[in-house]
Amino acid sequence: MQVHADLCLIPIGTGVSFSAYIAACQKVFEDAGLSHQLHAYGTNVEGEWDAVMAAIKACHQAVHAMGAMRISSTVKLGTRTDRAQTLQDKIDSVNNKRSENPR
Amino acid sequence: MQVHADLCLIPIGTGVSFSAYIAACQKVFEDAGLSHQLHAYGTNVEGEWDAVMAAIKACHQAVHAMGAMRISSTVKLGTRTDRAQTLQDKIDSVNNKRSENPR
Amino acid sequence: MQVHADLCLIPIGTGVSFSAYIAACQKVFEDAGLSHQLHAYGTNVEGEWDAVMAAIKACHQAVHAMGAMRISSTVKLGTRTDRAQTLQDKIDSVNNKRSENPR
Amino acid sequence: MQVHADLCLIPIGTGVSFSAYIAACQKVFEDAGLSHQLHAYGTNVEGEWDAVMAAIKACHQAVHAMGAMRISSTVKLGTRTDRAQTLQDKIDSVNNKRSENPR
Repeated sequence: MQVHADLCLIPIGTGVSFSAYIAACQKVFEDAGLSHQLHAYGTNVEGEWDAVMAAIKACHQAVHAMGAMRISSTVKLGTRTDRAQTLQDKIDSVNNKRSENPR
Repeated sequence: MQVHADLCLIPIGTGVSFSAYIAACQKVFEDAGLSHQLHAYGTNVEGEWDAVMAAIKACHQAVHAMGAMRISSTVKLGTRTDRAQTLQDKIDSVNNKRSENPR
Repeated sequence: MQVHADLCLIPIGTGVSFSAYIAACQKVFEDAGLSHQLHAYGTNVEGEWDAVMAAIKACHQAVHAMGAMRISSTVKLGTRTDRAQTLQDKIDSVNNKRSENPR
Repeated sequence: MQVHADLCLIPIGTGVSFSAYIAACQKVFEDAGLSHQLHAYGTNVEGEWDAVMAAIKACHQAVHAMGAMRISSTVKLGTRTDRAQTLQDKIDSVNNKRSENPR
């Protein structure tokens, strides 16, 4: 089962800057060989369910290891059985609809 | 690693009523022996990370098997290394603060 | 337009305990006269869209006023045009499905 | 109060393709003059709290007007009192951390 995920991880008790922790998570996704894309409020990731979930667990473990005693993540998980679709397909699909109806 | 999770699963392409699908997910959590509590916009679940994640995957599989071709879930995941805490502890803690400061 | 909302507010830079901040948000909902229900990973709130949104803004303002320099909330918003439904109706509907199919 | 928001809106009861509805939301943000960026699992939006919230309400109204009887959105809301920051600043900050620690 393929999954499209969006991970927004919040380290708690470490101050108001998250960038070092988010950078560590980017490295986790890279090391896992998962297609991923950072945005301003999270990271899109796609791949096999178990591989994506293993990476999300590794993100929590990495951020705890960096000193965060508490973490709260919001994860969106999209699965579908009707057809294969990449993260980029979803963006292209919306943009195509926009160009068909410019006003 | 223990986790507090909150799962809000939305079956897509099956109509506007979700209750049969959510009931199937409740059964998944029961069968997994995980402490869980339904609320009006999701289900709180607690347990070992891998057991909770296996149950969330089983929810997606069960809902697809019921005919939903697409699913989008929002999952919150809370982990902490400083101390053990149950779901009920969190509610009690807020209620205690409320009773200390009734106005 | 009526809305079912679920607010999970995370104060950042204030330490690992949230209960005082969440208690302040409970008071905001009470003062606004909105039907609400605390659970272990957020609070369900229902009411007119503008009233619920005003309360969520007031929660952010209250928590900033208590000293949190940064806040990240996850809010779920459910609207429907087909019929009226309360938060409790949603829970009852799932529980009815469960009792119809006990196994 | 400025807010960084991330909106993931799911039209329910309309089939498994969302792109026309998401395109309509993009138009709402454009018409509102709000800085926004589509990604594969939502849209980042930034601006004054009331303007962003008015746009999110307009998205729900537009999608209902297109025929969706039910909608469930997940919205992330980030506010901070310590300093001004754009959506792009957040991405740059993570990327800078990544380039400092390439391995």
